[in-house]
This record gives sequence, structure tokens and C-alpha cells, in this order.
Amino acid sequence: MKKILIIGIGAGDPDYMTVQAINALNRADVFFVMDKGAVKEKLVALRKQIIERFVTHDHYRIAEATSPERRRDDGDYTSAVDELNRDKQRIFEHLIADEMREGECGAFLVWGDPSLYDSTIRIVEAIAHGGQHAFDYEVIPGISSVQALAARHRVPLNLIGRSVEITNGRGIANGFPDNVDSVVVMLDSQNTYRKLVDEDLDIYWGAYVGTPDEILISGKLRDVADDIERVRAEARRTHGWIMDTYLLRRPA
Amino acid sequence: MKKILIIGIGAGDPDYMTVQAINALNRADVFFVMDKGAVKEKLVALRKQIIERFVTHDHYRIAEATSPERRRDDGDYTSAVDELNRDKQRIFEHLIADEMREGECGAFLVWGDPSLYDSTIRIVEAIAHGGQHAFDYEVIPGISSVQALAARHRVPLNLIGRSVEITNGRGIANGFPDNVDSVVVMLDSQNTYRKLVDEDLDIYWGAYVGTPDEILISGKLRDVADDIERVRAEARRTHGWIMDTYLLRRPA
Repeated sequence: MKKILIIGIGAGDPDYMTVQAINALNRADVFFVMDKGAVKEKLVALRKQIIERFVTHDHYRIAEATSPERRRDDGDYTSAVDELNRDKQRIFEHLIADEMREGECGAFLVWGDPSLYDSTIRIVEAIAHGGQHAFDYEVIPGISSVQALAARHRVPLNLIGRSVEITNGRGIANGFPDNVDSVVVMLDSQNTYRKLVDEDLDIYWGAYVGTPDEILISGKLRDVADDIERVRAEARRTHGWIMDTYLLRRPA
Repeated sequence: MKKILIIGIGAGDPDYMTVQAINALNRADVFFVMDKGAVKEKLVALRKQIIERFVTHDHYRIAEATSPERRRDDGDYTSAVDELNRDKQRIFEHLIADEMREGECGAFLVWGDPSLYDSTIRIVEAIAHGGQHAFDYEVIPGISSVQALAARHRVPLNLIGRSVEITNGRGIANGFPDNVDSVVVMLDSQNTYRKLVDEDLDIYWGAYVGTPDEILISGKLRDVADDIERVRAEARRTHGWIMDTYLLRRPA
């Protein structure tokens, strides 16, 4: 039986790796590394750096594949992601079928935590359910960018006894939800927080959190929104890519 | 200057410890361990086990204090937690003032992640803002029970491009929110999921996740609610305490 490990490697600092994830890395015969083009080059490099640092043997292989890109037209977001995931599934099936032998262990290294805004679990489960490939799989949790953000700002995600919602740029574009007072926004490439500057909100924003390039800004949204937009644009130009996250909160 | 480390130790499996948390443990001169009475004895034991396993020197101290209990009357929940946190703050101030010397490093070991349903950050920040004690503090993220649950069930927390809400038993008692399709419930001692059995929901429930006592149940809520309630009551009797979490999801 083949074994697939979906390993959360944490978001940013290689020291976010857990003992469980390190042990899982060392069980792998082959690492599947998805290249996502120039802008994600740094994330691929970080995966390789983690493998080199934490794997204690030298008989592993790295199988690289080019990750398909999501259509960026005006069509339906969910169907675009569905299509992307079908493309990814074909690539994953190829990796599982052709790049590992019976009895071997293959690992996908997932940035942050595999359970949050990542499709690897969903795709591997779809392949397992398809029944054409016999394998078992395990999921190893990792420190997400949400937790890294909260830790670096030294701020709780929730107010006392209250809820927190985790959403993306599209989710917060519909407005700040009525039923929660804390919202974490991931994957917002459009500076959507700007739409909420007239509301009384605090923001805790971070980019490249946990890395040497980390930038943190916090304050009243209306006071710091312009700063964040400017700093974000500059950082994106400087680094060629950006990964940022923010917590929005109604004051208690 | 004194230094306080608020270290997330993960929820359940000692292997959830990150490299960053292990390094932080090794910087501490004194560990503050809060005893919460018989039912939490196991959690205190787990903290000591983590210290013994991961600290590589033997010149550390353990300062124990009895954690105050929250009032369980019918009063307002938030004010009861506020009162509890003021009691805790007095104890933390005593620990920081009397149990560590100038230039030393003290550590609070937080179950799961310090940013989620835990008051340690809030209390330490209140003491720092109070200005009577001069110290610096850092927060180290940890694998939360939410992530452990998702990993063990091998299920994503969110549907594609959709939000997830993290709440407690009181939060879900108000009904399943309209604006999300995935809700994680922590700290529900009342089997509140029973109130939602007439809705079309999937549940992924887990107790003692990541430990040798782990129990996982999943399925249509209406089909497995009775099982969960029975298994939960039995486990609580057997172990004398329970820590469980669940994900509720509207089918896609």
C-alpha cells in the first residue's frame, strides 16, 4: 500500500514546524513539490529549505510538478476553483501513480495548516474515493498564518466568550458580518479592508509574518488603512509577491 | 528586564510542539503551572511531561499556583469571565513579582493555541499596561484543538472559497449562523449540537484528540447525535474529565 502524508509546515518561520511534522518528513521517500511560477518561487524554496534542514537521511527524492493556475476571468469563483482542483487532481494522480512505488511514502508539504484555505486534503480525498489508486493518507496540522498573525501582534483572535470568523477577501467584500465581532481575512489581494474604513474597527495586519521580511501594522482601521495600502504595494514591488493576513475587530 | 513567554504547547499530542516552542521552553528559568483542580490534573501532568521531555537543562524551576474557578451561577457569562480574569491577574502578578528575579525568563504553557479561547494573553497584557511590573512578553503559537480535530478527521475546515466560524457552546446555542456553512464549536459542556438535529448538517466530533484516548465520530448530525451524547457521557465518567470539539457543516 502506498502512503500519502499531507504535512502542514507552518506559515513563515521554519521553526513553526512541529515534532510530528518533522517525524512525518522523515518517513517520506518522495516529496511532491508544486511549482507555482515565479511569484511563488520563494515558497518552493522554503519547502526545500525545510526538507534539507529537518530530514536526517539522504535517500529521499523530490518530484516537482507545475501547479496549474486558476482562471482569472470574471466567471464564477467556485467553478474556477473546481476546475483548478480537477487540473490539480490529474497532476496529483500522476505523481501518486508514476513517482512512487508500492509500499513507499509520499509527502505534500502544505504552507500553513492543511485544513484552512488549502485544497490538498480535498483533492487527495477525491482521488482516494475515485478508487483507481490504492493508498492510505494522513493529515499533519501546522501553524496557520492566522495563528502566526495573532502571536506576532500578541492579540487574542476572539473577545471573551465571543466568536471569530475566518474568511477571504471575497467574504469580507460583503461587509462586516453582524453576528461576530472578530474577523480574520486571508487571501485578500484587493485591499478589501478599505471598504470598511467608515466603520469603527481595529485592524491587526501582517505580511510575511514569521519571516525576516515580516511587516506588522495595527490601529484604528480608518487611521492606518492608507498606510497598509501603501506599505503593502511597496512590499509587493520589492519582493515580487506578498502573503498577508489581517484581523478586523469591533472594539469591545 | 523580566521576560514572559506565553507558549502554545498544542492540544493533545506532545508531538504537536513546534521547534519555536521547544526553543522557548529552553529559554525559561521558571515555568508557571496553574493547577485547576482534579478534573484538569491530566492537563497539568501533560505540561510537566512536556517540560521534562523537551527542556535540555536541569536548572529550571516550576512555580505552581491554584487557578481560580469561574462562578457557575446564572449570572452574566462575560462578567463572570471578567471576574475570573481579575482573580487570575492577581495570581499572575504574584508569580511575576515574587517567583522570578530581574533578568529572568518565566513561561506560561498554554494548552492549544494562546490566541483562541484562552485568557493568558489578555491577562498578561493587562498587567503590562498596568505599569506596576516592568517586563516584556512574547507569544508562541501552538496547534489548536480545532486544527487537531480537522487533521484527525482529514477534513478541511472551510468549503471552497467559503468562511468558517469558530465559536463556543453559548455561540451555537443561538442557532446555526446564516452567513457561514462551517462552524467549529469549542468548550461546549451542554451537548448543544442536539438543538440542531433537525437541520441538514454533517458533524465531525472528537474528544481527547491527538492523545491515546482519542475518540472520533462523524456523520449526519441527526444520525450520530445520540451516539456522540452517549459516548461523551461514558468517556467523561471513565476519565473524570473531557475535552471535546466539533465541526458542524451544511452539505455543499
